[in-house]
Amino acid sequence: MNALASFEALAADKLIDDDANYQWRVARAPTGLPKPEDFRWGVTDIPEPAPGEVLLKTLYLGLAPVMRMYMQGGGAAGEAALHPGDVIHGRGVAQIIKSRHADWHEGDIVQGQIGWQTYKVSAMTPAEKMFRCRNFGLPAMLSCKTLGMTGLSAHAGLFACGEPRAGDKMVLSGAAGGVGSIVSQLAANVAGCDVLGIAGGAKKCSIIRDLGCSAAIDYQADDVAAELATLRPDGIDLYFDNVGGNILSAVLERLAMRARITLCGSISEYAADAPYALTNYTRLRRTDSRMQGFFVYNHLDRWDAVMDELASYIHDGRLRPVQDIEQGFERMPLALAKLYTGGNIGTQLCSVRGEPGEWR
Amino acid sequence: MNALASFEALAADKLIDDDANYQWRVARAPTGLPKPEDFRWGVTDIPEPAPGEVLLKTLYLGLAPVMRMYMQGGGAAGEAALHPGDVIHGRGVAQIIKSRHADWHEGDIVQGQIGWQTYKVSAMTPAEKMFRCRNFGLPAMLSCKTLGMTGLSAHAGLFACGEPRAGDKMVLSGAAGGVGSIVSQLAANVAGCDVLGIAGGAKKCSIIRDLGCSAAIDYQADDVAAELATLRPDGIDLYFDNVGGNILSAVLERLAMRARITLCGSISEYAADAPYALTNYTRLRRTDSRMQGFFVYNHLDRWDAVMDELASYIHDGRLRPVQDIEQGFERMPLALAKLYTGGNIGTQLCSVRGEPGEWR
Repeated sequence: MNALASFEALAADKLIDDDANYQWRVARAPTGLPKPEDFRWGVTDIPEPAPGEVLLKTLYLGLAPVMRMYMQGGGAAGEAALHPGDVIHGRGVAQIIKSRHADWHEGDIVQGQIGWQTYKVSAMTPAEKMFRCRNFGLPAMLSCKTLGMTGLSAHAGLFACGEPRAGDKMVLSGAAGGVGSIVSQLAANVAGCDVLGIAGGAKKCSIIRDLGCSAAIDYQADDVAAELATLRPDGIDLYFDNVGGNILSAVLERLAMRARITLCGSISEYAADAPYALTNYTRLRRTDSRMQGFFVYNHLDRWDAVMDELASYIHDGRLRPVQDIEQGFERMPLALAKLYTGGNIGTQLCSVRGEPGEWR
Repeated sequence: MNALASFEALAADKLIDDDANYQWRVARAPTGLPKPEDFRWGVTDIPEPAPGEVLLKTLYLGLAPVMRMYMQGGGAAGEAALHPGDVIHGRGVAQIIKSRHADWHEGDIVQGQIGWQTYKVSAMTPAEKMFRCRNFGLPAMLSCKTLGMTGLSAHAGLFACGEPRAGDKMVLSGAAGGVGSIVSQLAANVAGCDVLGIAGGAKKCSIIRDLGCSAAIDYQADDVAAELATLRPDGIDLYFDNVGGNILSAVLERLAMRARITLCGSISEYAADAPYALTNYTRLRRTDSRMQGFFVYNHLDRWDAVMDELASYIHDGRLRPVQDIEQGFERMPLALAKLYTGGNIGTQLCSVRGEPGEWR
């Protein structure tokens, strides 16, 4: 992890306590992979909630590939464009420690758009997409990702968009990632698909076999197109795409009849200078296949039902949350950098203060 | 039509009678747009059917953009690869004039893979995709395209693949072409869509307004992206794509929620040296939209039902066949060249001998 050493250094001298609001802000728009110089450390007073507002104390923050796009200032994934000096967007789990809002109470555990900071004043507006974290008898930490937007992404992308059928010969890229580690288990254990996972490195390939994949392709070591031909001789019924680029193109060459491609993410393209040029989308024609995108915020109306469902799978063992947890708010830039260097396994989060003392 | 003058010259010295089998063969694989030098004239004896075979006398032949791909030898759209010297693939309408086949009789009118020739011996195998032309009280000529594979393409692409909803704000490219002229009328008059047609030139734009389009964009004169923004301010619900390339890319920038794109053809790409590089397919994500292909031969099981339906629309006036008819088998290369130069309106066919004397 040499690429991450400079991020270790960035974290090393940061001191954090509960007496101020610590923040990570955009220093400059990243070009290529994020670098330490793209982040600026900030310290402010703890803000005071006005009438109609609450004060949130951050417990966990989640990391997502889209954050680099936020930092680049274009606006992405339903969040406002950021400029140098702005606190970086990020969803997380927090506890309300002061409330001047009629509907929200001191002690409530919530998840939503907190930003990269240790406190936040919020009016709990729809723009922040705040949800009460329900106590399913599970750690609050899970609400950061698995019982949060990541879990909803996996569920909506697999079921609403991918329409899996039992026995589908499926391929899943980014299978060891945040969304992928959930999709793999839902596809294998709930939908009854035969999941071929793609991940980077022997360790991840071993892990995804434990997450329901019947076979694995190591994109760092294997010829992906050749392995797809060998492992999917009758074609691919369903492809859940977390990476875009060459792997999407290789899958398009091996579609079964009426195949479905779910476009979830394209992490291989995020740090590229130019978008990927897909030259074989016309392969969808011969097999009456489709490529369908989805955006998780289009599926918020099903939040409660999906969280109920995912919590039940955690309880019955069909879904094991895979969490990669960095300890300490100062390590947020490092946690983000891991996403782009293949360094994380499962959902990536950062523990700012850990579990709440009480769950109201 | 200067580009077609050399094809006029190619046709000028060809003499055709009923005493021999005249053919157009591949002289060489076309590079870029087809040229007269790509075609070779051939004359053979009229073949004799063996037991289990019939002798077909060609009445009409249809032209389709895919024929250039056949000639290039790669094999395309379910037909075998062609090599220099081979008779060019082409579907058409013929009458059986001798039969040594138990299921087919002298006088039957059929449509199927005849090839560019004035007679053909056929065993009526599934590979030739031969269908009996039913007599709906309509000219046999219609079986060449509108009540043939072109009509099935339009129907399958619009209904099975595009799943139109009444009131859909639709866009249709290649609206004055073979498939397009049928899709426009089915979408407007049967499915109840609001069809914005795209075609090349003022004449075609005028024609497509008569075919159900409520508005038209002239891609030769207008800024397509700007016109789409003006004419589809709330986005595009359904896009039927006959052209691919830049217009597909422009549509991807203006999708409404849960939009559907039907990939039918990509004529703008067929004569290009390299396939089009689609850099914005990820636009499907934000709006939960899909891009779906279809291949007409995947829909042959619904042949009879679709032909019944299309014939009923012709009788009740909701579908007016638009046919561009070249007279004379010698004009086949010219009729094909018209497809790539924007020269044809509606379905392109060639009358070899015209209507049969009797319809059995």
